Amino acid sequence: MIVIMKTYTPSTEIETLIQEFRSWGLTPETIESNNKVVIGLVGDTAAINLEQVQQLSPFIEQVLRVKNPFKRASLEFRNGEYSEVVVPTPNGDVTFGKSHPLVIVAGPCSVENEEMIVETAQLVKATGAQFIRGGAYKPRSSPYAFQGHGESALHLLAKAREATGLGIITEVMDTSDLVMVAEIADVVQIGARNMQNFSLLKKAGATGKPILLKRGLSATIEEWLMAAEYILASGNPNVILCERGIRSFDKQYTRNTLDLSVVPVLRNLTHLPIMIDPSHATGYSEYVPTMTKAAIASGTDSLMIEVHPNPKKALSDGPQSLTPEQFVELMQEIAPLAEYFGRGKLPLATTRAKKSSAALITA
Amino acid sequence: MIVIMKTYTPSTEIETLIQEFRSWGLTPETIESNNKVVIGLVGDTAAINLEQVQQLSPFIEQVLRVKNPFKRASLEFRNGEYSEVVVPTPNGDVTFGKSHPLVIVAGPCSVENEEMIVETAQLVKATGAQFIRGGAYKPRSSPYAFQGHGESALHLLAKAREATGLGIITEVMDTSDLVMVAEIADVVQIGARNMQNFSLLKKAGATGKPILLKRGLSATIEEWLMAAEYILASGNPNVILCERGIRSFDKQYTRNTLDLSVVPVLRNLTHLPIMIDPSHATGYSEYVPTMTKAAIASGTDSLMIEVHPNPKKALSDGPQSLTPEQFVELMQEIAPLAEYFGRGKLPLATTRAKKSSAALITA
Amino acid sequence: MIVIMKTYTPSTEIETLIQEFRSWGLTPETIESNNKVVIGLVGDTAAINLEQVQQLSPFIEQVLRVKNPFKRASLEFRNGEYSEVVVPTPNGDVTFGKSHPLVIVAGPCSVENEEMIVETAQLVKATGAQFIRGGAYKPRSSPYAFQGHGESALHLLAKAREATGLGIITEVMDTSDLVMVAEIADVVQIGARNMQNFSLLKKAGATGKPILLKRGLSATIEEWLMAAEYILASGNPNVILCERGIRSFDKQYTRNTLDLSVVPVLRNLTHLPIMIDPSHATGYSEYVPTMTKAAIASGTDSLMIEVHPNPKKALSDGPQSLTPEQFVELMQEIAPLAEYFGRGKLPLATTRAKKSSAALITA
Amino acid sequence: MIVIMKTYTPSTEIETLIQEFRSWGLTPETIESNNKVVIGLVGDTAAINLEQVQQLSPFIEQVLRVKNPFKRASLEFRNGEYSEVVVPTPNGDVTFGKSHPLVIVAGPCSVENEEMIVETAQLVKATGAQFIRGGAYKPRSSPYAFQGHGESALHLLAKAREATGLGIITEVMDTSDLVMVAEIADVVQIGARNMQNFSLLKKAGATGKPILLKRGLSATIEEWLMAAEYILASGNPNVILCERGIRSFDKQYTRNTLDLSVVPVLRNLTHLPIMIDPSHATGYSEYVPTMTKAAIASGTDSLMIEVHPNPKKALSDGPQSLTPEQFVELMQEIAPLAEYFGRGKLPLATTRAKKSSAALITA
Repeated sequence: MIVIMKTYTPSTEIETLIQEFRSWGLTPETIESNNKVVIGLVGDTAAINLEQVQQLSPFIEQVLRVKNPFKRASLEFRNGEYSEVVVPTPNGDVTFGKSHPLVIVAGPCSVENEEMIVETAQLVKATGAQFIRGGAYKPRSSPYAFQGHGESALHLLAKAREATGLGIITEVMDTSDLVMVAEIADVVQIGARNMQNFSLLKKAGATGKPILLKRGLSATIEEWLMAAEYILASGNPNVILCERGIRSFDKQYTRNTLDLSVVPVLRNLTHLPIMIDPSHATGYSEYVPTMTKAAIASGTDSLMIEVHPNPKKALSDGPQSLTPEQFVELMQEIAPLAEYFGRGKLPLATTRAKKSSAALITA
Repeated sequence: MIVIMKTYTPSTEIETLIQEFRSWGLTPETIESNNKVVIGLVGDTAAINLEQVQQLSPFIEQVLRVKNPFKRASLEFRNGEYSEVVVPTPNGDVTFGKSHPLVIVAGPCSVENEEMIVETAQLVKATGAQFIRGGAYKPRSSPYAFQGHGESALHLLAKAREATGLGIITEVMDTSDLVMVAEIADVVQIGARNMQNFSLLKKAGATGKPILLKRGLSATIEEWLMAAEYILASGNPNVILCERGIRSFDKQYTRNTLDLSVVPVLRNLTHLPIMIDPSHATGYSEYVPTMTKAAIASGTDSLMIEVHPNPKKALSDGPQSLTPEQFVELMQEIAPLAEYFGRGKLPLATTRAKKSSAALITA
Repeated sequence: MIVIMKTYTPSTEIETLIQEFRSWGLTPETIESNNKVVIGLVGDTAAINLEQVQQLSPFIEQVLRVKNPFKRASLEFRNGEYSEVVVPTPNGDVTFGKSHPLVIVAGPCSVENEEMIVETAQLVKATGAQFIRGGAYKPRSSPYAFQGHGESALHLLAKAREATGLGIITEVMDTSDLVMVAEIADVVQIGARNMQNFSLLKKAGATGKPILLKRGLSATIEEWLMAAEYILASGNPNVILCERGIRSFDKQYTRNTLDLSVVPVLRNLTHLPIMIDPSHATGYSEYVPTMTKAAIASGTDSLMIEVHPNPKKALSDGPQSLTPEQFVELMQEIAPLAEYFGRGKLPLATTRAKKSSAALITA
Repeated sequence: MIVIMKTYTPSTEIETLIQEFRSWGLTPETIESNNKVVIGLVGDTAAINLEQVQQLSPFIEQVLRVKNPFKRASLEFRNGEYSEVVVPTPNGDVTFGKSHPLVIVAGPCSVENEEMIVETAQLVKATGAQFIRGGAYKPRSSPYAFQGHGESALHLLAKAREATGLGIITEVMDTSDLVMVAEIADVVQIGARNMQNFSLLKKAGATGKPILLKRGLSATIEEWLMAAEYILASGNPNVILCERGIRSFDKQYTRNTLDLSVVPVLRNLTHLPIMIDPSHATGYSEYVPTMTKAAIASGTDSLMIEVHPNPKKALSDGPQSLTPEQFVELMQEIAPLAEYFGRGKLPLATTRAKKSSAALITA
């Protein structure tokens, strides 16, 4: 930790500060230059808060942390070894991680009814994807919009899993729903709007379930990793980070701005696996295939893609959902790309997928 | 609602759309110009979602709502009459509203112990302020930072109220704490990070308690009013909107960017009372007095100001807290300003306040 | 300057760096903690570029400057004394500065014709304002929009000055127009879009004329002061900083976001005088009076307000222009406020102003 | 164009407006719903400014353009056909365009001396790239930083072209340098900070030279295309759009935020060719290879990559420059990717390139 004093700080003030730091068990060392003093603090500063130091004196200009504030989420915490999040599903274990095949999560924004979620799951399964996604509880900006079917939708997801063997990823919005969601979901999603809902982070972490942590709309990378730290600090090492587009000054042509350079940046900072959600990031299905490919090239470990049997009739987020046909085509297109980037052979787009897709389209 | 079609949309597509809209009970009217068709939808479109319309056809370029999406929060909903939020406190009813005296809420970031919160409340009371604030549950970016004393802090706040007659404003972060917080608090605060925690909004609204809704770090004004709409739609009309600084591209010299022009903008859009929090907005106590005055000039109905008996020793947000002396001085300075802007005579800064302040400083 | 090395940087690398710094004439001092080394550089680091240091080694994590990068613009450069920019006008010298009366600049967005600019100047003069503003060269986002009348408009401004004795503030957009603009204008404006047009800054500085430097749409405070530094470094000490709203994520209800807390922040950083432009910041005339008052409360030294004899017929920026009547009313309202804040008695809103205003309205 | 009136606008006001629009040669059509009137304007509205309409009445809530404001830059202007920008170079014509091979522009941030620029050009040539970049005039945030060698650097670029046959891309910052820059450069670059320097856009357009137009730091896509429109409107059809990262709320780990989804978005809006600059976007050389691949996957037509014989000693932007070895490796890696995406066989990374690289490294 480094404490930068204002120019012309009285030396008595600096001496007082140094005594204070010594009383905290730290070893302060000073550098002087042009009437400016900088104090370096050697010792265990992890538990010390920047603000605590700042408030020691009005002569403190800035307090800087030399180490990142995240600890368990840091790459250094695992000595540079990337972690794997292994999720058991009826079809077998699926591993999220830097040296593993690309994991594909697909499905509709919301679970609408049994037929649609089971059929979508069958399509998703047929393309070789490993997880079905679908919202039971939906965060909607309007109280008058469809809020999700709640508990009953969770049971429909379970039926889709039974029918296909796919794992389930679904969002939890309220700590009071956690037990139920964690009982059914294979991966519990915390959405962008709840990224700093610290109660939810702690309690979701405590379930022990793998957690998919979406980046907040205007969350810095550091804040995002600190949110992950909440889950990790609750004793749960299974966190997957999902970039889903950030808010910028321009929302005219895309819903959000997909920040793909987070992938290489996160590789330098954290051992946690990474997912990209091009559907929410762009907000328009026509941009999803291109950005899916760009995400693979950027090195993502997994992808979350919205697909709906009939986007026009979707109860939410229709414009960003691929049709079954588009999804099958995309899965075919990305197979060689995933292989090129060392992300495994995807058993994609079999005849069954096409048939399933055709069936859904005519439905 | 207005539906703008892409150039050269086939007329059959437009005809299909028009039939669809008619089946929804709407009256579509079209305008044609340069191979472009715009469809105006007349009828009750409040319950219709922009996305639902968007997904009807890939030829739809844009869907625009002519009315604002918020209804109960809109100024029109009350025919242009501004609402009053009346909060009973031991010292009598306090009214938040456009034609009422300025309401001052002050206190520390966190409730630390009985002595500090009671003494701070006495200071706050002595200056003529009406509410004591203080966090029992604290949203902190790090899991290793002080998280608030929780339930026990709520009881200390109640003691501070007993001792002074001030009302209590404190934050709730988890739906499972709502009953307890609502039982003790006079106004329940929903913080910036939970502004789109829709479960919390609904359940907090259902308590019937007055709700202080802080604006999210990157929430648009429309999103903020839609969050208020969640509370209003749950049957609770007592919502106060609090601007506390937004996130911009520059965080070097202030913690957030105080968006003061929301005050006149909100006056055009909503009937709800407004509060400004210059402490969180700027993040530095030295900027709080100036921005407090600017907030009064902008027309705010109330202010939330952090004051701590000893900011240097504060467990959180010390740098943005005023000292008792600074707070007393500020209250003296703003009294004539409040009066000038028709916001009542504040019974500020009596000898007792100065004495109380002196007592705290020497403590 | 402080150089933070990555954890586990080899000691040979650090030794090499230290040698390099010594060869630059600096005295490096190191602090070690948890396998992390921080190097403090003592000596004259003003001429050294952060990037130059950064590129010395891939093991460098971060390079921090202890001092601000701006020098001539810094408050320390004048030992804490605020500067005054004195502008001679036919009506006498006008001084911009922290301990001087509020300076009011008003006028239309563009100079449209002789009658409108002369009559507006008469109105502006009658209210007690000191400068007429008006664009001869207009930065417009569309090449098909009115681009300003150019040179001929400069001559019309000169006529307005002759008729009223007011000073002239007008924008220059191209270095090739500088000589002409500087010859006529009393203060040369560099607009937001040209804040980092470094050629223009240098050459405008070299004219010796007082420069009004508007903040760029997404310019950090540091970048803004560095732009001022370009002018100061060219030997011209007469710079006024103008905040005119920044770009944020929300543009639905205001054109830009007025960042009023820059006023107290700039007071800590720089000696230069400050102006606020509430017209461009909000983009709507209905918000201008309120934000003008808030700007005065925030401590601004001067204000730039758009007024147009007939905003509905304005060739540019009509919606943000006050009518003559509204302007006169605003000047009357702010007079006591300016006085309250120690900004002098404004000789505002005489009968003549009202008459002039009435004349313009009926014209 | 659509004019949305405020609720309860008096019908006389609407009638007056309709008369006004008729006098402009337009055909107004109205839609009424819930005391709200919307006026659709049929006719030639291209020359009409949104603001002009807005200012017609205070009862106007919003004015919307049904068509995009850019005309020559729009895809519709060329009936959906993408344009090609053909640049003659000593090595032959190079074509930028959607159905052409990837064009690679590489070189140092600044031209430092003859040896470095000629040797870098030889390396760039050997890898199969088509253009050398290098700044003669450098926009630097500090007046004390290296500002580029100016005119003499232009002559060094010409020597590098002579030696290699590569085309030259270099930036112009001042209209007074345009003749000289245009005489030597094969493509004239307008930098991010000058994207709305409208004088420069007009005059650069008038030179007839191909223009590389970088996106401004906080320019919306629409503003960027309107800047291109300035060049196109001056009669110059040869514009290439270059995304180089935008400014967001997070600058901690990357210099800017690379907005890759602009590539598919621009394909929907404009016929102009697209370039991506991952060096400026990320600001760190370690992220450049990954984001280069992601850019190719996103469908870019060309890339601008910084390479420097010795980044540690670079006079500017060293941290974002690749070393010769890294550049050669990257060119080898992207060759199959470019081919996979139908962007031609790149004659990359021959023995000569490796040798040249080796030579530079040992230099």
